[in-house]
Amino acid sequence: MSIVSPTARADAQADQAMPDLAAEMAAIGQAARAAARHMALATTAAKDAALKGAAAAVRDAAPSILAENALDVADMRREGGSDAFIDRLTLTPDRIEAMASGIEVVAALPDPVGTVIAEWDRPNGLHIERVRTPLGVIGVIYESRPNVTADAGALCLKAGNAAILRGGSDSFRSSAIIHGCLARGLAAAGLPTEAVQIVPTRDRAAVGEMLAGLGGNVDVIVPRGGKSLVKRVQDEARVPVFAHLEGVCHVYVHAAADLAMATAIAVNAKMRRTSICGAAETLLVDRAVVDSHLRPLVEALQAAGCIVRGDQATRTAAPNVEEATDSDWSCEYLDAIIAVAVVDGLEAAIDHIERYGSHHTDAIVTADPTAAEKFLAEVDSAIVLHNASTQFADGGEFGMGAEIGIATGRMHARGPVGVEQLTSFKYRVRGSGQVRP
Amino acid sequence: MSIVSPTARADAQADQAMPDLAAEMAAIGQAARAAARHMALATTAAKDAALKGAAAAVRDAAPSILAENALDVADMRREGGSDAFIDRLTLTPDRIEAMASGIEVVAALPDPVGTVIAEWDRPNGLHIERVRTPLGVIGVIYESRPNVTADAGALCLKAGNAAILRGGSDSFRSSAIIHGCLARGLAAAGLPTEAVQIVPTRDRAAVGEMLAGLGGNVDVIVPRGGKSLVKRVQDEARVPVFAHLEGVCHVYVHAAADLAMATAIAVNAKMRRTSICGAAETLLVDRAVVDSHLRPLVEALQAAGCIVRGDQATRTAAPNVEEATDSDWSCEYLDAIIAVAVVDGLEAAIDHIERYGSHHTDAIVTADPTAAEKFLAEVDSAIVLHNASTQFADGGEFGMGAEIGIATGRMHARGPVGVEQLTSFKYRVRGSGQVRP
Repeated sequence: MSIVSPTARADAQADQAMPDLAAEMAAIGQAARAAARHMALATTAAKDAALKGAAAAVRDAAPSILAENALDVADMRREGGSDAFIDRLTLTPDRIEAMASGIEVVAALPDPVGTVIAEWDRPNGLHIERVRTPLGVIGVIYESRPNVTADAGALCLKAGNAAILRGGSDSFRSSAIIHGCLARGLAAAGLPTEAVQIVPTRDRAAVGEMLAGLGGNVDVIVPRGGKSLVKRVQDEARVPVFAHLEGVCHVYVHAAADLAMATAIAVNAKMRRTSICGAAETLLVDRAVVDSHLRPLVEALQAAGCIVRGDQATRTAAPNVEEATDSDWSCEYLDAIIAVAVVDGLEAAIDHIERYGSHHTDAIVTADPTAAEKFLAEVDSAIVLHNASTQFADGGEFGMGAEIGIATGRMHARGPVGVEQLTSFKYRVRGSGQVRP
Repeated sequence: MSIVSPTARADAQADQAMPDLAAEMAAIGQAARAAARHMALATTAAKDAALKGAAAAVRDAAPSILAENALDVADMRREGGSDAFIDRLTLTPDRIEAMASGIEVVAALPDPVGTVIAEWDRPNGLHIERVRTPLGVIGVIYESRPNVTADAGALCLKAGNAAILRGGSDSFRSSAIIHGCLARGLAAAGLPTEAVQIVPTRDRAAVGEMLAGLGGNVDVIVPRGGKSLVKRVQDEARVPVFAHLEGVCHVYVHAAADLAMATAIAVNAKMRRTSICGAAETLLVDRAVVDSHLRPLVEALQAAGCIVRGDQATRTAAPNVEEATDSDWSCEYLDAIIAVAVVDGLEAAIDHIERYGSHHTDAIVTADPTAAEKFLAEVDSAIVLHNASTQFADGGEFGMGAEIGIATGRMHARGPVGVEQLTSFKYRVRGSGQVRP
């Protein structure tokens, strides 16, 4: 079975600048706004049917998806893309199945729309409810991973939103055909296919149009990608953004830390997967346990394949430690490298994290509950952990089913952005003729 | 007793452009960020003591506040300010007492910071809590009402934030001396006075600096004022904004509306106070009840002193109705004027509101629960009411104690912005050595 979305068919034109990009993008925005209004009122059953239909369409279209993806991969190889980039772009039968089952996981989540978050009565008899509503139109701008098309599209739909997806130009054909599967699910469920649109051009000016808000028809932008993308989005966006600039995450081994636990957590936090934003980038070791803990920690990391850069105290206590410079303390390596510093107690650890961290995810290892509480209260990060790995910074691990990213800002969403975070709310007030005195 | 803040003392310089405004404003931002960190960890007792101290300081300083305010009012008279503007600017002993007791109301509210909003356990034993935290640094930009200095400052403090206040140049002296009272309360409670700062210049370029975010040291801007202020803020702000552009609020009299209830609600919604954003601006009457309801509704409004502008059907059914033009349907009169249209049923009423409204507050009057539910579900406004006046759109009426404004955007805060809406949250995760598989 072959499913090729109209945008994939138009691939020959996609490389050329669109003759009137602004008008095309404005039309996409208007269609999204109309579809959002429809989706806001769609039943849970219809939305779930659309998602299940999309998952089935992804499975049916697997051969075509692989074929389109192979063209994208061939282009990237020809252009000399790195192995890491090619890996992110490449789809396999397993990865396609993971995409389909990921859409089904979202379908199985509770529908947040219409949930009464709070309700109360007023002395005058008014009954007030705060009830979840969709956010509206969500623009998602991402890079080479084509699975984001399915993940982000599914989450936006579940929360009753319309989505405008702008994939990376590297994954243009792959994203287009996956988008076609989402559209097929929507159509089969009787929902407007414009509820998930994909930008039908590689022209980067389309990103600028989205960031300008398409005439009020984009309510929030979600960037998913590297630093330069997120920075462009935060600099240029005229609409709200859910973004994290980076994850400079810390593990702090407190004076009362059990060495075995600290070692297990530090190695897992750094090395389980080095490329995710919840990976630890800096290990802080309390001076009180330098003699007992520092060398075993460093050696365990090195044994796991990690390069260790340290301050003077670390280099004195442990072998084969490179010299850390000031830039290491705020570096998101996303690689098998860690910076290690010795700190003078809990306050100094908190100060270090506040100074160099990115307010993403930070952990303390300690058997002292008072120290743990102080750390959890005073470290101003989206996620703070006691005696657990920073790699738990993930919507799935939090029980949210799926996430569109991890937000480090303080507005609206913070931490994993799942279906609930893709909603707004309104107040529903029921009276019996009340007027205000 | 005389309390004159340093900024009031510097009044002679305030009119002149500051020699290095950008540097001054940057310093204000840095001081706010440092104070915000302190305030985030302040105890409820300390914050409440600061607020009670500020209220006492306002009462003590009443004679000085009146004297400073008289200078502001004299300036405005000299410059030919309208009666409405002069009324907004003018403080009286009653208004000063209302300010002081308003601060005490905020002090008596529950402290939102540290509240666990949700908590759950994961199968791996991790315990996850979502806990309220302050937002950080809040910039408040307002116009001639000097009481906003006290209201906004108190709400920001209660929620553990730092505030940077930029009052109207008309109320410069009045706001400065009220700010001095807040600072006195903070100092007496051992909290940093930089937790509430006021911009010490009338130079409008200071607003531009705030909107640019003071180098990352402003987390959100709250504009309180007329359309042109809010529009400037929304156009220029490089940081998130809580704003409502306007309140084009509707009362829809459905086919199943009781005439007496509809009349009471329509007259209250329009005429109780015409200058607030929750005042109704448009009355929609169902064609099914034109013969029975329209003329009595129009006459009741006219008897209450309201000018009525109507469409052709309204002008046919009722006397002394001016002709409404298309611009009337989206006009926020904030005056004793109402636009009246006849609509063909519930769907048409909803369509009218979605087309011309501002997503602020809209009400249906009906005895039909099915119609009411459809209206409450489909009208996409911050507040939707059944059988109650739109003038209930107010944080105090909602039981929030006080509000800094009413937000019509969909991000973070929607509807009345009280202390809870001035907070963010973080995740606190407690483990016992868990690592991620």
